[in-house]
Amino acid sequence: MSSPPANAVVLLSGGLDSATTAAVARDRGFRLYALSVDYGQRHDAELRAAGRVAAALGVARHVVVKIDLAQFGGSALTGAMDVPKGRTDEQISHGIPVTYVPARNTVFLSLALGYAETLSAADIFVGVNAVDYSGYPDCRPEYLAAFETVANLATKAGVEGTLKFRIHAPLVDMTKAEIIRLGVRLGVDYGRTHSCYDPDYTGAACGRCDACRLRLKGFQEAGLTDPARYQD
Amino acid sequence: MSSPPANAVVLLSGGLDSATTAAVARDRGFRLYALSVDYGQRHDAELRAAGRVAAALGVARHVVVKIDLAQFGGSALTGAMDVPKGRTDEQISHGIPVTYVPARNTVFLSLALGYAETLSAADIFVGVNAVDYSGYPDCRPEYLAAFETVANLATKAGVEGTLKFRIHAPLVDMTKAEIIRLGVRLGVDYGRTHSCYDPDYTGAACGRCDACRLRLKGFQEAGLTDPARYQD
Repeated sequence: MSSPPANAVVLLSGGLDSATTAAVARDRGFRLYALSVDYGQRHDAELRAAGRVAAALGVARHVVVKIDLAQFGGSALTGAMDVPKGRTDEQISHGIPVTYVPARNTVFLSLALGYAETLSAADIFVGVNAVDYSGYPDCRPEYLAAFETVANLATKAGVEGTLKFRIHAPLVDMTKAEIIRLGVRLGVDYGRTHSCYDPDYTGAACGRCDACRLRLKGFQEAGLTDPARYQD
Repeated sequence: MSSPPANAVVLLSGGLDSATTAAVARDRGFRLYALSVDYGQRHDAELRAAGRVAAALGVARHVVVKIDLAQFGGSALTGAMDVPKGRTDEQISHGIPVTYVPARNTVFLSLALGYAETLSAADIFVGVNAVDYSGYPDCRPEYLAAFETVANLATKAGVEGTLKFRIHAPLVDMTKAEIIRLGVRLGVDYGRTHSCYDPDYTGAACGRCDACRLRLKGFQEAGLTDPARYQD
């Protein structure tokens, strides 16, 4: 008899990158526990998309943790500033974007770590990407390596040696087009995902914010059509 | 003219250690922003105590972030197991206690980091202690040093060099008796703090759980009387 699949925790935002990351984890044979964080986003289209993606992947469980990061202020994504529209590739790729949420990935990875320890899951998957979002400091490999060190020092399982935590960021060095091609090969239905920072009330994407522009450019470079729904 | 005081974020649980830590931070001249986390504790006596302590310290702001760690299961403090009573010092100091909450300090420090970045506060104070609670892996100096590395890699301010984050754990090497003597010298009213894992409905401490026993032993060794209210 073969051994049962190992558990892995996957951070699932409902976006294109995390859906692809989850598909990679499933493809590597893990039993998936999806974790989404409701951190006071301005819309819940992301969380609805996370639910659709989790269901399509057949995860063992999908937990949504609510936490009000908006109390701290400091980012367009939590309501403190306007979402920029129509920026050029140059502007998007240069510097840290205003949509940056302070310490977001550290908060998310910490939650994933707590969940992973209760599940005896050594493997945590996160869809960060250092190529198209070079402006986010917490998407870089050196940051992820430092967090992995923390994970193994922070936990009973890590200290007692029963688990060796690994932070997997399989997309970290890929372009958006490469991510999309990989996901399509793994059967991801990108029509279930949501990337837009500023959707209308029906959840349709704006097509003009940084996230929409990077996504559309990725599909274009991959020679594919984005199945997401855009505003007319 | 002297420069205005620098901001610091202080994690405030409402317990004896965090109240003393906050008093240390104030004594060093910082303007305090207190952060408490409502993480699904079985009682809210701790959070009420945090509010009393914050008020007594004259903090600039006290933020309570609610987050449901109980969704993950795995600890007596979030309702999944019974709180042990009447354990010996030997039992308390040996091994990782069942009241361990997975990744708790990592989650709390991540939230403190996010809050600190929005405040341009380089200094984060946390009341962890490696002496009386040797069983918690995320109370050790090597863990705190690793988190400090993460903090400076994770953040816009850290990467751009505008802030050099420091995690301060002034109590890390002190015994409970030393902490109490320090706090009394700094004017902490320990009657406002709460340590018990299993208080009654009035908030009175049980006197028998690990937290109560360590606290009472600390006051005894310091030659002082604990002003906290205990069940008859």
